[in-house]
Amino acid sequence: MSRIISYVLFIGAAFMVPAVFVSLGYSEHNIVIAFLKTIAVTVVAGAVFYLLGSKAQKKFYAREGLVCVGLAWVALSLTGALPFVFSGEIPHYIDALFEIVSGFTTTGASVVKSVEDLSKGILYWRSFSHWIGGMGVLVFVLAIIPVFSKSSGSSFYLLRAESPGPDVGKMTPRIRQTAMLSYIMYIVLTVLDVIFLLIGHMPLFDSICVAFGTAGTGGFGVRNDSIASYTPFAQNVCTVFMIMFGVNFGLYYHLIRGKALTVLKDEEFRFYIFTYIAASAVIILNMKSAGTEVANTTVRNSFFTAASIMTTTGFATTDFNLWPSLSKAVLLFLMFCGASAGSTGGGIKCSRVIILFKSLRRNVHHYLHPNRVQTVRYNGKTVDEEVVTNTNIYLTAYVMIVICSVILVSIDGFSFESNFSAVMATFNNIGPGFDVVGPTGNFAAYSYFSKIIFIADMLAGRLEIFPILVFFSRSTWKRS
Amino acid sequence: MSRIISYVLFIGAAFMVPAVFVSLGYSEHNIVIAFLKTIAVTVVAGAVFYLLGSKAQKKFYAREGLVCVGLAWVALSLTGALPFVFSGEIPHYIDALFEIVSGFTTTGASVVKSVEDLSKGILYWRSFSHWIGGMGVLVFVLAIIPVFSKSSGSSFYLLRAESPGPDVGKMTPRIRQTAMLSYIMYIVLTVLDVIFLLIGHMPLFDSICVAFGTAGTGGFGVRNDSIASYTPFAQNVCTVFMIMFGVNFGLYYHLIRGKALTVLKDEEFRFYIFTYIAASAVIILNMKSAGTEVANTTVRNSFFTAASIMTTTGFATTDFNLWPSLSKAVLLFLMFCGASAGSTGGGIKCSRVIILFKSLRRNVHHYLHPNRVQTVRYNGKTVDEEVVTNTNIYLTAYVMIVICSVILVSIDGFSFESNFSAVMATFNNIGPGFDVVGPTGNFAAYSYFSKIIFIADMLAGRLEIFPILVFFSRSTWKRS
Repeated sequence: MSRIISYVLFIGAAFMVPAVFVSLGYSEHNIVIAFLKTIAVTVVAGAVFYLLGSKAQKKFYAREGLVCVGLAWVALSLTGALPFVFSGEIPHYIDALFEIVSGFTTTGASVVKSVEDLSKGILYWRSFSHWIGGMGVLVFVLAIIPVFSKSSGSSFYLLRAESPGPDVGKMTPRIRQTAMLSYIMYIVLTVLDVIFLLIGHMPLFDSICVAFGTAGTGGFGVRNDSIASYTPFAQNVCTVFMIMFGVNFGLYYHLIRGKALTVLKDEEFRFYIFTYIAASAVIILNMKSAGTEVANTTVRNSFFTAASIMTTTGFATTDFNLWPSLSKAVLLFLMFCGASAGSTGGGIKCSRVIILFKSLRRNVHHYLHPNRVQTVRYNGKTVDEEVVTNTNIYLTAYVMIVICSVILVSIDGFSFESNFSAVMATFNNIGPGFDVVGPTGNFAAYSYFSKIIFIADMLAGRLEIFPILVFFSRSTWKRS
Repeated sequence: MSRIISYVLFIGAAFMVPAVFVSLGYSEHNIVIAFLKTIAVTVVAGAVFYLLGSKAQKKFYAREGLVCVGLAWVALSLTGALPFVFSGEIPHYIDALFEIVSGFTTTGASVVKSVEDLSKGILYWRSFSHWIGGMGVLVFVLAIIPVFSKSSGSSFYLLRAESPGPDVGKMTPRIRQTAMLSYIMYIVLTVLDVIFLLIGHMPLFDSICVAFGTAGTGGFGVRNDSIASYTPFAQNVCTVFMIMFGVNFGLYYHLIRGKALTVLKDEEFRFYIFTYIAASAVIILNMKSAGTEVANTTVRNSFFTAASIMTTTGFATTDFNLWPSLSKAVLLFLMFCGASAGSTGGGIKCSRVIILFKSLRRNVHHYLHPNRVQTVRYNGKTVDEEVVTNTNIYLTAYVMIVICSVILVSIDGFSFESNFSAVMATFNNIGPGFDVVGPTGNFAAYSYFSKIIFIADMLAGRLEIFPILVFFSRSTWKRS
């Protein structure tokens, strides 16, 4: 396991190299030094882990896999936070850790009051961390999948539910191949995004950073007003690309292979698109009944914000904290629902919502006809009972984490709306919430204790709870 | 089924007779007429149902049982609302329905702005409806239990988890016996409550009404400031009795039979008492750190409010809407958690919270050791896997209902805190929430559309979701 952590650290150090060049390009010499220092520390830490690790490839089981993923993310975050501290731009280490975890987990929540005061090198690193986190997790899960194949991880089952055909044992090459393809599509889509943003008159540096934020469904921007001051065309480009990055990458694979019908028939895709359009429509109607004149701007902002929240990106073109209650309630539902499984987006995932709804309906039927065998069907196939149970227990874990987090961060004394939406925004990896943490606010006002809770929530949300939860289980640390 | 509905209506009419005498005693002649009119309507409706019903006792299965319970409650509420309308004290029928459903479901949420303006007869009927609802549901579930015995209802399984020993087939007589005993204990405890309240210098009429509200864990009071203006002794009597009525009545049965140890070892009881004391302590400490001087009053109010919310009663001695954030977050958790199974209290119930927590822990273990067989244990026994699944799906249903309700009532445009706490307060059968629906506010400001949502939530909460949910299932209405 130490070996894997060391590789992760080496890769982490390598990922910082572009930021060095950006800083050099903008003649930010102290930032260059901050990154070089960090790279040195990271490489040394990686070397220590490498030497601690044994050569013998220990067999990986569920426990080792979960612990490894958890530790890798923690190690990556602990070192990734250093440039902020070394450069003095986010001097307190907990703040810096909050910022980079928010980056890697593609949350986009910030403790920085004015991002325009940050240097270009640091801005680039913040946005690039989204891109690493968005891809990294996918690659991690997909490349590491043989580790999970003997356990009953829901991510594995969700993947299996998406990839048609083969049984468990033969899945490995296919998943790896999919991972490679996802990687390529990720790069292609990001480049396309940059090109379209440039066409929309966005400066090159901004385009790259915004594209990173969009691709990872992160949400860090380079301006204080997020995306609001760019051209309407650029905003619409963002909307379209956010929605595209919230789609299961497996569907693009089908599309490339010419199976457009499979895509259109996919239950999760249909639910995702339908919910998105319905939510946008409700918001527009709600605005209208609240007396706002429905102009192009309202329509654009509504579609933009619904996309931004549902894909858990968190960009803003307007202060949706001032929207009427119904619109805010719809946004909270979108926060909960989230994007598609197998995308870079967060939240509980559309496919889980579908399975939850279907399992509930099945239970009502079972109540009425106890002797009839009834299964939950998804995309035309019967869902394994274990997946149904796991999905319901996932919701239980989700609810418990939300409740505990809200109680703990309430100690700071902010409004319930702030606390609840702050937990939802971090746990679902969105970024901004309402009230104190609304699009015009930030997380700086919360205490360090609360920030640590938010850091844990962001990691738990990104890694789908269990890799973080096992850290709290005694039997993880017992020798078996 | 029509026969059972007719019996329920006849009993409902009989329950209104005391209110007639109360009105007579206070010389409220128009109220007497309102009740007599209602009794006439109810008896006629009952007769119609009686004649519609067939003599042949059709066999009851899960479907019929659920539909019957649901219809019985609806019928009881539709007629029970009439005295408010006939007397003109709550002229709009939807308001009257809200008030009586709030009564029968022991919620205690009100649309009346000043209860002191109501006549004594109406006040008596409101409070008595709590007593009927609190007992009625227990008697219903326990007396009707053979109907459920072939299904997999969670209420049945929760009951089974509580009553030691016998297998399913032989349970019927025992459950009936328990129902009778619960009934007797209910009356004895209510009378004791009245006596202690009288000792605390509460007027007789108030004592009876407050005891009804306490026994049913309802919360309708007869003064605008709820319980605040009574003596500290009377308030403490309320606190103690609220906690007592939130305990599983099965435990009193054990106590009578001298099995005090069984009571002390009961997991739900321990969780209930521990959570109550811990929550009260956190509130007191939070008050202290917020600068409130911790005097007797603070301690009394904290213990009172925690008891009132956790048992889902909803009485108030202070405006807890003004409490600091942490205390309010703790109260929201108590709303969710609720009282014990088999008590008159609402909420998700402590036993379910325990099973949810244990099933989550089991799943983490299963993740780590997939080949080890692991069961959920509760009170020293293995919990049936179906109960574990049902409990998790119960939470799913709970979350979905909360989300849908919050979105729908948000149309009225009140704050998120109001909407969320209003849904929690009605769905968990508590009564007051925060902000607009706080202890000094009421539900009058919401639209009739929202009130209908709240009515459905109150019924769904009281009948534990499924009897209401089956109304929305197509297969309920299909002939099989």
